[in-house]
Amino acid sequence: MTDIATFGETMLRLSPPRGERLERTRDLDVRVGGAESNVAVAAARLGRETTWLSKLPKSPLGRRVTAALRSHGVRPAVAWDGSESARLGTYYLEHGGDPRGSDVIYDRQGASITTATPPELPVGAIEGADLFYTSGITPALSSTLAETTAELLKAAGGTGSTTAFDLNYRSKLWSPEAAGEAYESLFPYIDVLVAAERDVNTCLDREGDAIEMANGLIHEFDFRTVVLTRGEHGSVAVHDGEVFEQDAYAADTFDPVGSGDAFVGGYLAHRVHGGGVAEALAYGAAAASLTRTVDGDVAVVTADEVESVVDEDGGGLSR
Amino acid sequence: MTDIATFGETMLRLSPPRGERLERTRDLDVRVGGAESNVAVAAARLGRETTWLSKLPKSPLGRRVTAALRSHGVRPAVAWDGSESARLGTYYLEHGGDPRGSDVIYDRQGASITTATPPELPVGAIEGADLFYTSGITPALSSTLAETTAELLKAAGGTGSTTAFDLNYRSKLWSPEAAGEAYESLFPYIDVLVAAERDVNTCLDREGDAIEMANGLIHEFDFRTVVLTRGEHGSVAVHDGEVFEQDAYAADTFDPVGSGDAFVGGYLAHRVHGGGVAEALAYGAAAASLTRTVDGDVAVVTADEVESVVDEDGGGLSR
Amino acid sequence: MTDIATFGETMLRLSPPRGERLERTRDLDVRVGGAESNVAVAAARLGRETTWLSKLPKSPLGRRVTAALRSHGVRPAVAWDGSESARLGTYYLEHGGDPRGSDVIYDRQGASITTATPPELPVGAIEGADLFYTSGITPALSSTLAETTAELLKAAGGTGSTTAFDLNYRSKLWSPEAAGEAYESLFPYIDVLVAAERDVNTCLDREGDAIEMANGLIHEFDFRTVVLTRGEHGSVAVHDGEVFEQDAYAADTFDPVGSGDAFVGGYLAHRVHGGGVAEALAYGAAAASLTRTVDGDVAVVTADEVESVVDEDGGGLSR
Amino acid sequence: MTDIATFGETMLRLSPPRGERLERTRDLDVRVGGAESNVAVAAARLGRETTWLSKLPKSPLGRRVTAALRSHGVRPAVAWDGSESARLGTYYLEHGGDPRGSDVIYDRQGASITTATPPELPVGAIEGADLFYTSGITPALSSTLAETTAELLKAAGGTGSTTAFDLNYRSKLWSPEAAGEAYESLFPYIDVLVAAERDVNTCLDREGDAIEMANGLIHEFDFRTVVLTRGEHGSVAVHDGEVFEQDAYAADTFDPVGSGDAFVGGYLAHRVHGGGVAEALAYGAAAASLTRTVDGDVAVVTADEVESVVDEDGGGLSR
Amino acid sequence: MTDIATFGETMLRLSPPRGERLERTRDLDVRVGGAESNVAVAAARLGRETTWLSKLPKSPLGRRVTAALRSHGVRPAVAWDGSESARLGTYYLEHGGDPRGSDVIYDRQGASITTATPPELPVGAIEGADLFYTSGITPALSSTLAETTAELLKAAGGTGSTTAFDLNYRSKLWSPEAAGEAYESLFPYIDVLVAAERDVNTCLDREGDAIEMANGLIHEFDFRTVVLTRGEHGSVAVHDGEVFEQDAYAADTFDPVGSGDAFVGGYLAHRVHGGGVAEALAYGAAAASLTRTVDGDVAVVTADEVESVVDEDGGGLSR
Amino acid sequence: MTDIATFGETMLRLSPPRGERLERTRDLDVRVGGAESNVAVAAARLGRETTWLSKLPKSPLGRRVTAALRSHGVRPAVAWDGSESARLGTYYLEHGGDPRGSDVIYDRQGASITTATPPELPVGAIEGADLFYTSGITPALSSTLAETTAELLKAAGGTGSTTAFDLNYRSKLWSPEAAGEAYESLFPYIDVLVAAERDVNTCLDREGDAIEMANGLIHEFDFRTVVLTRGEHGSVAVHDGEVFEQDAYAADTFDPVGSGDAFVGGYLAHRVHGGGVAEALAYGAAAASLTRTVDGDVAVVTADEVESVVDEDGGGLSR
Repeated sequence: MTDIATFGETMLRLSPPRGERLERTRDLDVRVGGAESNVAVAAARLGRETTWLSKLPKSPLGRRVTAALRSHGVRPAVAWDGSESARLGTYYLEHGGDPRGSDVIYDRQGASITTATPPELPVGAIEGADLFYTSGITPALSSTLAETTAELLKAAGGTGSTTAFDLNYRSKLWSPEAAGEAYESLFPYIDVLVAAERDVNTCLDREGDAIEMANGLIHEFDFRTVVLTRGEHGSVAVHDGEVFEQDAYAADTFDPVGSGDAFVGGYLAHRVHGGGVAEALAYGAAAASLTRTVDGDVAVVTADEVESVVDEDGGGLSR
Repeated sequence: MTDIATFGETMLRLSPPRGERLERTRDLDVRVGGAESNVAVAAARLGRETTWLSKLPKSPLGRRVTAALRSHGVRPAVAWDGSESARLGTYYLEHGGDPRGSDVIYDRQGASITTATPPELPVGAIEGADLFYTSGITPALSSTLAETTAELLKAAGGTGSTTAFDLNYRSKLWSPEAAGEAYESLFPYIDVLVAAERDVNTCLDREGDAIEMANGLIHEFDFRTVVLTRGEHGSVAVHDGEVFEQDAYAADTFDPVGSGDAFVGGYLAHRVHGGGVAEALAYGAAAASLTRTVDGDVAVVTADEVESVVDEDGGGLSR
Repeated sequence: MTDIATFGETMLRLSPPRGERLERTRDLDVRVGGAESNVAVAAARLGRETTWLSKLPKSPLGRRVTAALRSHGVRPAVAWDGSESARLGTYYLEHGGDPRGSDVIYDRQGASITTATPPELPVGAIEGADLFYTSGITPALSSTLAETTAELLKAAGGTGSTTAFDLNYRSKLWSPEAAGEAYESLFPYIDVLVAAERDVNTCLDREGDAIEMANGLIHEFDFRTVVLTRGEHGSVAVHDGEVFEQDAYAADTFDPVGSGDAFVGGYLAHRVHGGGVAEALAYGAAAASLTRTVDGDVAVVTADEVESVVDEDGGGLSR
Repeated sequence: MTDIATFGETMLRLSPPRGERLERTRDLDVRVGGAESNVAVAAARLGRETTWLSKLPKSPLGRRVTAALRSHGVRPAVAWDGSESARLGTYYLEHGGDPRGSDVIYDRQGASITTATPPELPVGAIEGADLFYTSGITPALSSTLAETTAELLKAAGGTGSTTAFDLNYRSKLWSPEAAGEAYESLFPYIDVLVAAERDVNTCLDREGDAIEMANGLIHEFDFRTVVLTRGEHGSVAVHDGEVFEQDAYAADTFDPVGSGDAFVGGYLAHRVHGGGVAEALAYGAAAASLTRTVDGDVAVVTADEVESVVDEDGGGLSR
Repeated sequence: MTDIATFGETMLRLSPPRGERLERTRDLDVRVGGAESNVAVAAARLGRETTWLSKLPKSPLGRRVTAALRSHGVRPAVAWDGSESARLGTYYLEHGGDPRGSDVIYDRQGASITTATPPELPVGAIEGADLFYTSGITPALSSTLAETTAELLKAAGGTGSTTAFDLNYRSKLWSPEAAGEAYESLFPYIDVLVAAERDVNTCLDREGDAIEMANGLIHEFDFRTVVLTRGEHGSVAVHDGEVFEQDAYAADTFDPVGSGDAFVGGYLAHRVHGGGVAEALAYGAAAASLTRTVDGDVAVVTADEVESVVDEDGGGLSR
Repeated sequence: MTDIATFGETMLRLSPPRGERLERTRDLDVRVGGAESNVAVAAARLGRETTWLSKLPKSPLGRRVTAALRSHGVRPAVAWDGSESARLGTYYLEHGGDPRGSDVIYDRQGASITTATPPELPVGAIEGADLFYTSGITPALSSTLAETTAELLKAAGGTGSTTAFDLNYRSKLWSPEAAGEAYESLFPYIDVLVAAERDVNTCLDREGDAIEMANGLIHEFDFRTVVLTRGEHGSVAVHDGEVFEQDAYAADTFDPVGSGDAFVGGYLAHRVHGGGVAEALAYGAAAASLTRTVDGDVAVVTADEVESVVDEDGGGLSR
């Protein structure tokens, strides 16, 4: 009954108002976000049945996460952590602009999910999903979680789910070398690899143009599909020996955070629904561009809007 | 004593914060707006005596509309609807940016004004006005209102008022064909036609450049003046066989809604005061550009500011 | 799989800040609320599987309602109204204090739900629910809805669901006589009657003390259970010839709206779960008192909190 | 055409949020208020034609004052001060609670009105008003204004207006002795004296109960009417040798500032309209109690609400 | 040059708006607070030279703490933690009302201060302070901190500072038994003991009335002074064999958090300045009551205000 | 112990939200700002010991200024004005965009500082500072202040401090001629002159390119250093016969106010610390560009951020 299952950490996101610095703000905007739940939200909003697997503190903050995800139509499958040390990872996002960029301060150490093991997770809820997705953030969070990630990927493949993985390299969590090693240890269990081109350069130490790198990865690691994203330069995919290229859609960016996850969510939602790679890339790109116009990590968009962008009807004032 | 009288619907405008979607917002910014009262506000703020004629629910929401208009110096002449079904039209404005445009959701069906008939309206308050203005939105709201609009235009002409009309086509209210037919039925009673160039294309099925179309409309319908607005491409007017062209002033747009009405208000305010067409177009263009920098539908600008833009002194930081 | 199904209208609730009047506010707080979905939320938060059946406009406002309910764990079963006249009922709540009370202004005429008929509603989603609940607001909204309410009650009883009904008299919707007649026409299909004591006085024209009235209603209409609520004076129930009385719990009231629904939700949640009437009344009273401390219509409370109040452990500062 | 004309200073009022101190707040709520314009607003909202006479800086802040007053239906008659030293008086209001009271910090020195002289004021706008009102704050602001106040009172009496005056003693502006002397110099031109009982004690050095003091003042200064307000103890009036007493209506106070002016506005509105003293006291008391429930200095109330309080129908939740 | 030095943790405090639950809020109010810095702020604002010793993450959040303290006149003496695991303790405060109390959720595990050792702290900045203060929260945070607390108390006594300690029992941090044992191990180094009466009952297992308990503690542990606070029942002190009693001042409580620390800060500020115990208790009580009227943990009050309360002049509206 | 001392007025800054006009706003954002304290803040945040000398009203508003400055690490040395006429200068900042610029409305007449004389100022606190800075705004505020400025500059030079002065011409305060005359009377006591190129044109009546003007000023007035700022065209300096040029760093401007002061603060901070002119210009330019991205007058930046811009590492999203 589940089209797409995802596994990963979802954090509380706290942001000062625009123009205000974290050091001095009196007000924080509160939202929740996490790469894997962002993907789940995008897919759910585009019509897929999605389940998000995770571990959360048994607290108002933990309930906040499930409430937010359920509101978008995602089914949370959660191991509730009632221990004294239970906590929800938090991140502070300070919006910036040249010459200081936006800044993310993580306060996620020791979050409940870092201790998650397969036996305590309600894995039954994701068994038989058409697709299982997680990202490179998850194994970076703790050695326990690295093992759990590997086991879940193996298990998903074993029950017939397609497995998808986004490198999602985070320099504040680990070094490129550590990340690269961890990624490669997971590649045997991954069918669809999504990655930012720069993460392939940085962590997998590859060079060349995106298509060359995608082909190289496929040959070396035997992925079914490799999708490389290139920011404003669009994306490329290689699948079954065929190459696909997709431009990015122009966007008036309000909040860039989460647009990459919206791309993945849009792409996977379309693929799982039986769509072709070319069209799925377009859906992903449209979801990403729309998400840039909206505050917060998640793709508060509709299938109609995504289709409208793909059909090039966006913009203006409709009344 | 009234320089300019206008007739039409004014609605409650509810908007989420920037970057926030209507589907999820917890806060709505509340303002009031309506094409004809926007024109009245612009004219009043630029120094004209203005009266706005309408029908409103006898409720806090109805009083809110009159309070807002009075605060800008407009005199409301209102039929108060104390019936059980009395309601104020509402519209939701969600600010967007490429690739999703701003979105307007109307919730205006059955508003009190849709049942307004001449006998119940305090038409005495506008008798003898130098100019009577309404727009194509009004007859679109109900068949009752279409008849009332026609009667008021006839009556205004009969008492010596100049009549002005902006097509203001709204695709969410009616089809181009229905609109075009209604417009043409009113043209015999109209002296000054204002229209967006694209509305002339869409509803009156005309082609060619703006000046050609303006001349064609004058010849066919015997208007005294035709003013066509072309967005960032400026405006043109034909009056007494003479052609006038005006560029738009550049603006850092904060909220585009209402800038067209500010143009009309600025133009009419200047004309009614005895100004020439060329200068009136400049006043209209300046009022429109200033209004784009301000939140809300109405032209919160001063005559000094409009003149400063016309004299090209705007911009920078004054201290 | 559904413990409790409810049917009714859910509206957008718009409120000015405390101390501010609707006539002048620039900001509106946005929430959603409706008697039957409030009951569903309370029951869902207390652990029951709940489904809410309704009809909504296919719009961001409609989606807002389902998002809010899903966030609390309620499953929406919705007929989406894609017609041009689709609208969501709205109500304005102005918080007051002596000598002006709080004021509710309804703007709910012509809401999509007023046209809901059984064939278009996804009634399959509620078949076999242990309990079906609606309130006297629903038949008051339109004659179509009055018929639909009757049919749904009959159908629920026919498939073995217990049926529960709260009079919920609203003087802004109909007269006591019209309400009383409508209520009595539905009584044959109702197992559990909940009512404010004053509604029984007003609409059913009964007098005497609460227990006498409850007994009288049972004898006349053959209800299985009658629960009468008496505000700060607590509540009484008569069930199987037995009388139960429950005091209200003291509360620092922040927002009283919805506390009656929280009572019903708490009571039904406990009964459906197999609890006795006495304890269910305590649960209802605790849920109601907690809900008074929270902004908004819905019972943002937890089972732990309800139990803590029942066990008289509330209050103070816990750190 | 003017029922009531008032003359005095209106200031910008800046308040931190509840619980926040002026020393540290990041946000200020902005409103306008002044004793005489507060009275004008109350009277206008209760249906009287009112004009407010004053002098304001020709600036956005000055326009803000007129916009606010016009929104409530008051006609501003203003001498606009375009000089370099033009300024609008400002006051900071910090809401408190026991054991620190609310605090007012005036920043009103050198406000434009302090230089107002009769020749520059548009006094034609108030000629022939049924009633002319000002308060003891006005002569306290500058010696120029003390003279202007006296001249305006004389002129008003001379053209047949009833003159009304509220002592409104402000200890932050002058000493009781200076105030008392100034008041007494104006008494010959005053028909209706309104005063807080404590101001009579403090500044006019009278003792005894309120009725005794009222009678004493009438005998000494030959007022037509004396109204003494006693806070929660209500008010008394002596008129034509008759004594009237009125209780205060209980109120859940949100903001007490301006409730005294609402009393005066309510009283005068009713008297000017031909009402008797007893009923006028009740109207004043009702307007005052309602104003206490609303944020800001002015009486955002309706005649219906005032009448409802007088008829003792207030309170509760109406829906 | 330092009158009072304090040592302890200061946290980020995040609170939803009144009436809003942490589970659902979109906005958090941001402040900083901690028992020992609260005491320092109160003392600094009342005129003492104060230094606060602690360890903070080298981050915007750490800088926020020092900025806040400096703004009140406290000198921070900080060991900056630049490690990867550096974090600032956080606590969520949800304001409640009967029957649910206010709730505090700590997220303070692993905060930088939990690793603070004397060698890394800038202890030179507090050497020679007249008084050194810390509270029972500090040793509860980690075993490292328990040792550091003991060493700092010993060192302070060794350099001639008076040492003061408030039990400040926190049930969310440790058991009464563990706390009691830790407290008693520190008592030999403490001159002035402050404690809530209930903490003495709970953790030190004493019974009897407050004066008996204070005398008992003095006899057993040889304190110079014992001050016991009894909430709304006031406080008692025993010093040099003399007993002092002080009532609490009534307060309209806006935020009770921090009022205990304001009491201690007021008491110590007065004592360090040479004041007697009786007057110091009054100062403490006044500071505590004023602090209850202000949002946030810290005593945003002035010496004038404290004295005004002691002199019983508070309340009312001053203008 | 003081590296940099500054002297000048600091005002309350009140701003409506973006897109909102001062004439109509209900909310004002509150901050403090003043050229000389802005420079002090920038220097303090970049690591210098700084003292700000001024006169303030003894009031919550005066305390607000010192609290804000202390929070950034600046030591206030203040003459507290307890007189009845004490007031804090205020300015209203309305953010604009083409074609209306941002607007500043000063309400600073009669501020306490305008009466400041050397004997009452705590000048001891700045004696022996390495550098003393004030700007051309200070002598413009009153003749008393013009004299005080001259005396303080003389005294600073006499005790061995380097003196620095920014012309900071304000057309709302005085004419170019009056300003030019005043500037030139102070030049004998000034070592380092900073000026906007356009102020040199306007007030000192010089022409030619920036380097020519700088050289001309040095030759005529014998400055040690002249720094001319040219907005987006960067800055030039002449020092010891050497010419230095610095480009401006590109910035996404959120609030331009105070960026000039950040430049001066950055430049002086680096020079006082022993840095060369070329690097100091780069530091100033970096501080200015960062400050443009932050709301408010002051440079809420860190030394690390400034260095990062100088090293060209800014921009992007760091996570």
